Amino acid sequence: MDFTPSARSADLRDRVRDFVAAELDPVEGELHADIARRRAAGGDPWTPSPVIAELQEKARAQGLWNLFLPKEHAGRYAVDFGTDGGEGLSNVDYAPIAEVMGRSALAPLVFNCNAPDTGNMEVLLRYGSDDQRAQWLEPLLRAEIRSAFCMTEPAVASSDATNMAATAVLDGDEVVINGTKWWSTGVGNPDCKILVFMGLTDPEAQRHGQHTMVLVPIDTPGVTVDRMLSTMGYFDEPLGHGQVSFTDVRVPASNILLGPGRAFEIAQGRLGPGRVHHCMRAIGLAERALELGVRRALEREAFGKQLARLGGNAERIADARIAINRSRLLVLHAAWLLDQGMSREALSAVSEIKVDVPNMALSVIDLAIQLHGGGGLSDDFPLAAAWVGARSLRLADGPDEVHRNVVARIELGKYK
Amino acid sequence: MDFTPSARSADLRDRVRDFVAAELDPVEGELHADIARRRAAGGDPWTPSPVIAELQEKARAQGLWNLFLPKEHAGRYAVDFGTDGGEGLSNVDYAPIAEVMGRSALAPLVFNCNAPDTGNMEVLLRYGSDDQRAQWLEPLLRAEIRSAFCMTEPAVASSDATNMAATAVLDGDEVVINGTKWWSTGVGNPDCKILVFMGLTDPEAQRHGQHTMVLVPIDTPGVTVDRMLSTMGYFDEPLGHGQVSFTDVRVPASNILLGPGRAFEIAQGRLGPGRVHHCMRAIGLAERALELGVRRALEREAFGKQLARLGGNAERIADARIAINRSRLLVLHAAWLLDQGMSREALSAVSEIKVDVPNMALSVIDLAIQLHGGGGLSDDFPLAAAWVGARSLRLADGPDEVHRNVVARIELGKYK
Amino acid sequence: MDFTPSARSADLRDRVRDFVAAELDPVEGELHADIARRRAAGGDPWTPSPVIAELQEKARAQGLWNLFLPKEHAGRYAVDFGTDGGEGLSNVDYAPIAEVMGRSALAPLVFNCNAPDTGNMEVLLRYGSDDQRAQWLEPLLRAEIRSAFCMTEPAVASSDATNMAATAVLDGDEVVINGTKWWSTGVGNPDCKILVFMGLTDPEAQRHGQHTMVLVPIDTPGVTVDRMLSTMGYFDEPLGHGQVSFTDVRVPASNILLGPGRAFEIAQGRLGPGRVHHCMRAIGLAERALELGVRRALEREAFGKQLARLGGNAERIADARIAINRSRLLVLHAAWLLDQGMSREALSAVSEIKVDVPNMALSVIDLAIQLHGGGGLSDDFPLAAAWVGARSLRLADGPDEVHRNVVARIELGKYK
Amino acid sequence: MDFTPSARSADLRDRVRDFVAAELDPVEGELHADIARRRAAGGDPWTPSPVIAELQEKARAQGLWNLFLPKEHAGRYAVDFGTDGGEGLSNVDYAPIAEVMGRSALAPLVFNCNAPDTGNMEVLLRYGSDDQRAQWLEPLLRAEIRSAFCMTEPAVASSDATNMAATAVLDGDEVVINGTKWWSTGVGNPDCKILVFMGLTDPEAQRHGQHTMVLVPIDTPGVTVDRMLSTMGYFDEPLGHGQVSFTDVRVPASNILLGPGRAFEIAQGRLGPGRVHHCMRAIGLAERALELGVRRALEREAFGKQLARLGGNAERIADARIAINRSRLLVLHAAWLLDQGMSREALSAVSEIKVDVPNMALSVIDLAIQLHGGGGLSDDFPLAAAWVGARSLRLADGPDEVHRNVVARIELGKYK
Repeated sequence: MDFTPSARSADLRDRVRDFVAAELDPVEGELHADIARRRAAGGDPWTPSPVIAELQEKARAQGLWNLFLPKEHAGRYAVDFGTDGGEGLSNVDYAPIAEVMGRSALAPLVFNCNAPDTGNMEVLLRYGSDDQRAQWLEPLLRAEIRSAFCMTEPAVASSDATNMAATAVLDGDEVVINGTKWWSTGVGNPDCKILVFMGLTDPEAQRHGQHTMVLVPIDTPGVTVDRMLSTMGYFDEPLGHGQVSFTDVRVPASNILLGPGRAFEIAQGRLGPGRVHHCMRAIGLAERALELGVRRALEREAFGKQLARLGGNAERIADARIAINRSRLLVLHAAWLLDQGMSREALSAVSEIKVDVPNMALSVIDLAIQLHGGGGLSDDFPLAAAWVGARSLRLADGPDEVHRNVVARIELGKYK
Repeated sequence: MDFTPSARSADLRDRVRDFVAAELDPVEGELHADIARRRAAGGDPWTPSPVIAELQEKARAQGLWNLFLPKEHAGRYAVDFGTDGGEGLSNVDYAPIAEVMGRSALAPLVFNCNAPDTGNMEVLLRYGSDDQRAQWLEPLLRAEIRSAFCMTEPAVASSDATNMAATAVLDGDEVVINGTKWWSTGVGNPDCKILVFMGLTDPEAQRHGQHTMVLVPIDTPGVTVDRMLSTMGYFDEPLGHGQVSFTDVRVPASNILLGPGRAFEIAQGRLGPGRVHHCMRAIGLAERALELGVRRALEREAFGKQLARLGGNAERIADARIAINRSRLLVLHAAWLLDQGMSREALSAVSEIKVDVPNMALSVIDLAIQLHGGGGLSDDFPLAAAWVGARSLRLADGPDEVHRNVVARIELGKYK
Repeated sequence: MDFTPSARSADLRDRVRDFVAAELDPVEGELHADIARRRAAGGDPWTPSPVIAELQEKARAQGLWNLFLPKEHAGRYAVDFGTDGGEGLSNVDYAPIAEVMGRSALAPLVFNCNAPDTGNMEVLLRYGSDDQRAQWLEPLLRAEIRSAFCMTEPAVASSDATNMAATAVLDGDEVVINGTKWWSTGVGNPDCKILVFMGLTDPEAQRHGQHTMVLVPIDTPGVTVDRMLSTMGYFDEPLGHGQVSFTDVRVPASNILLGPGRAFEIAQGRLGPGRVHHCMRAIGLAERALELGVRRALEREAFGKQLARLGGNAERIADARIAINRSRLLVLHAAWLLDQGMSREALSAVSEIKVDVPNMALSVIDLAIQLHGGGGLSDDFPLAAAWVGARSLRLADGPDEVHRNVVARIELGKYK
Repeated sequence: MDFTPSARSADLRDRVRDFVAAELDPVEGELHADIARRRAAGGDPWTPSPVIAELQEKARAQGLWNLFLPKEHAGRYAVDFGTDGGEGLSNVDYAPIAEVMGRSALAPLVFNCNAPDTGNMEVLLRYGSDDQRAQWLEPLLRAEIRSAFCMTEPAVASSDATNMAATAVLDGDEVVINGTKWWSTGVGNPDCKILVFMGLTDPEAQRHGQHTMVLVPIDTPGVTVDRMLSTMGYFDEPLGHGQVSFTDVRVPASNILLGPGRAFEIAQGRLGPGRVHHCMRAIGLAERALELGVRRALEREAFGKQLARLGGNAERIADARIAINRSRLLVLHAAWLLDQGMSREALSAVSEIKVDVPNMALSVIDLAIQLHGGGGLSDDFPLAAAWVGARSLRLADGPDEVHRNVVARIELGKYK
């Protein structure tokens, strides 16, 4: 159980952290304000500020690009499209880098390491044909385009993915797609060009062999972004979460990923690393919140004392430190298990962190908000948005309850 | 300890509940959508929809108006401006009415029972001169104008109100006001005409005798609403929460409430009932959330079962029922103590519910969100906004930590 | 919803409280020490100290006797055997009296209001024949004998009472009893003369009609107290909890209560009030713990401050006050519903308090222990035993999980 | 951050685990029953059963002896008195071994790795003179004698160790000791021969230089074991926790450890590793409890289902698994920091685990008790005693509150 990052990882982490502090922290407020102004003026809040492309260019030039690419699948893509010239990183090596990215809402996009594009790129890397990779993976790796993942549906409890009712029916050498998806992250962005759609193909097949994953260009006739959804009042520009309807959408059968009925096979592979990345970033989010909370608690006084010295505040700060530290270790442990290829152990471990980390982050961020008073709920600080981000993680990629059941099933299975 | 509502209270509660169901629930979604559309079109989201005035008219016509007016202070105002022809209600009698209002985000405004106007009206009722009441209280009671309360400041920890640094300095027969306030609820509304300002007059006086409360018409030269603040992405139109700056603002000394240096005396009287009203409404909010959560849990299926029958959901629903029931009783108890004039007991009781109820409501609403999946975080359901409302109550009118200390001080005091 | 105790209840409560303070608190330590000494000397720790009978005599002489007798069932027994000459008390009237009894581990026995005798007396009162009442109820009301309730079994999950496998088979005009019970409270006491046994009579009957309740004198051949059980190291002398085996035990069929197959009917009636009494007493236990904790926190100093002023202690004391107050109200509410005969509402309410109160008491007692340091875990203070008592209540008379499911079932049932 | 145990550590862990399973688990119940029988018969429950010495002999013969001896201090003692012929183990290497010892209440004593003897041996190792080591350390390493640590006092809040008021006054070449200590673990055991006493020498010295640590043979005139204390009803034979009074006790000044006024220097060194060992064992205790709970949940049925499939039980089992895993990693992290000699980081880390692990263990054990029903509170299972052991760890070696403040102080210190 060796969680020591390699020298390359430590160097990348330091450089990412410095880049975030030097390049992103100073502009983040202005970028948010710009979106708010555009929204208030009835303008388009979705087109990314040109500043983002400039920052991406700068990050790429420094070799801080596509660092998410997984060691075991990246192959030549890591060397060609990650610009530090190295192979893909192990999960243990990527973890501290993802953590420092998680400190900034802007960072994942700037380093081309943001969900859902990373997950979609991994899908293409692992399961895409050469043509599919040439057409979609490479521009994604260059951040020329963005992508979305269309899985969750408004009409069914999507926590049970086999409930998915939108259809992907084979018709000769085409696939015909119908249905409505929501929480399709990224479709607000005008650069979003490709959707990874998951739908029901054969209701008679065995439970996890009924669904198919298909690449659907967003400009295919019949695809409509019906509306953008808010999460607790936030629209998360410039990516956003949309509701997308598909009406008799036809794409070539060659757009199918891996093969008909194999969507769950892909989903399992796609969502595992994505969950770990979410958790890695959420550790950084919690660290950032604790830092802000402690600084505020030291700056402000009430009743003649620093907030940090008042009542239970110090004890709560201690609990936050304990909670972050132990959750980080749990994430590193899951990353290490993935690196070791210990799939059964990793299955439980990934679900463990998916339950543990967002809940931990929520409690730490909540403390930081409380230490900030009313300001903590406003957009003067990144805490309110951080809280909403962590809250949505208790639902995204499987709700807590589903992951607890994965952990429990494995635990109970030890005694049979 | 008799919490039985009077027949009049029970009748009013039923009628308010029916009014909410018949008149408000059907239009609330559209009113929110209208604000969102105006915002998206660069329009003015703050001017209240004319529908609200119509609903207010209808509520007034049915005698469901100004029901918050307190028994012991309402006097002729309850009879003249509350249109059911009765006296002011006791706290125990008002509690169930406020609870059913709390089920709807729209209701308090429609029944002219919304914060901060109720608190400001109480201040005028209890501490206003005849002139002040004629000029400001009566139009407020008719909902012709709205008001705001300017207390919290961005530059200091306002949890300790004696930290307030904005100034209200006597200069002959005028008061000169300088400083910046925020979280002034209501200033977004174009009908907001009068501010109740609290500022530092005499830094040499004893700790709770330094501040003065002054009526400041919002159109007085030197008053600027600098910006409107969001709480977790919500702007809470059509009232909103603003940052307001005061630069050499001059008003007649006759605008002082009660007298120079007597602001804390008023604040104590103002905030007590306001806190109880907040808690009463939060009980209704939690009930509404539980109802939505249970309905969803019965409608949706995953893994072959209703959500309500899956894993720990039923146990969590039971815990929510228990939590609501016991918190409601605690609120009724505080109301009853206030009605009995048991001021020391009520002092602890009000702080007890101010800690207990918002935290209870948050846990119930969080459960309901989780049962709704992603939708629970969107504006398709009132849950996300409800959560934010309850979260802000852990800070508004005194953070949890301050109220816990009130309770503790009284508890420790029993053993001296 | 009127929770005001009658004048008679308030008077009795004051007198019970004073009796506890004047007569019981001073001797309780010595009584415990006496048991410990007898145990250490290899003596009999079970025979009650003669002091208890003297205290009972004194209590009876003051009319503080059998106050548990329920208004609706007590009839002449309350007048004849309760010595204040009054009728049975309502639940709302008994609640504050039970609460002050709960402050002392000794009090319930001294006032003849202790479990399981109260429950058994209620069973005889409500379901016993005249003969059964003459033979067993009257000596119990005079505290001449004690009783036990034999329901839980070691070999099955007794949380589901229909699992009970010990048998009560009719054979002519006799009932033949076989099987093993445990957690039969009271069988340690040499005065324990009568067992209320519940066993399986007809496995073919409908689920809740298979079991029968039978009166079994403890000296019937075939009855053996196999051993006394500890709860976390405590044996709870002089009553104790035993494992009792029944081997071909024969009693007349006239010993059956109510009729064959009617045990669940009785159990429902027996356990409801018993659960409420447990909760009433647990409120007193929590109050006593908080009082001890606060006193200690004011007496002891560390790092130059009273413990009460250190870190989060004051906030935790506030939370304890809030928790006790709201739980007490929930208990009063359940008592009031029972008094109103609102059986469906009371069904949920009793399960609500059965979940809420012991957990609340545990958290308050745990705080008090922590404030006492190591001493809190010793028998120098009544806190350790109080904690164990409250912990056992999370299992006795139905575990938390079962009661949460009762509450949930009723909650879900509202939406069908 | 490499937590991989060495091959020697892994081998020792396996052998300890197998020894526990093969030699201790089968006899533990009988040893407890034997103590209970002796106690019930008025006999001496304190003299250890001869079985323990036999088991110690067997453990020593297999090289499973004194494994706690720390790498950096053990020197020749590890080779001479640990019988696997190796050097002392690093903390990371000892952690998994201590964990498997923690699964059994008996194991630490059998492997000569039990508190407080390990701590006292470390004190002698690090701070003892050659004479002191020859006289006391060597027989302790051979388990010929036992020892106790006399620090906590009944009359003051000992969470602040500077409160200690018992005196150790220099008088010529003697030290005169007066005062009363309690929670002196080990003094119940007739083999206990030596006390490590800490007392006030110079009230005028700086705060952490006033106290002195002295070796006091238990048979010195003036030393009296006043009584043995229970923790929640358990006496923890054959070691026990005693109250010890010292009346004009005189020992040679050469019995002073390190030097007058240097007790805190030693205490800091003594308690750090002791706390880590406690936490390592508590991880094993929690694992054992979870295993028992899961097994029971799979064996027992209620309402037609395995307990493991009922309600929230599976989710709670998942939470327990998550909680144990992350706490174990936190302990390993603290062990690793100690091994790296990172003293500032380790200072926080040790306090972090001292807060985290006992609370985690309590919640897991509580779940296991609940899954066992009433039996879980009895001595038919090791759960009740395990709970009490974990509860006492929230006070022993510094209460939670003190350790939270250590963590907070270090956290706040990062921003100065």
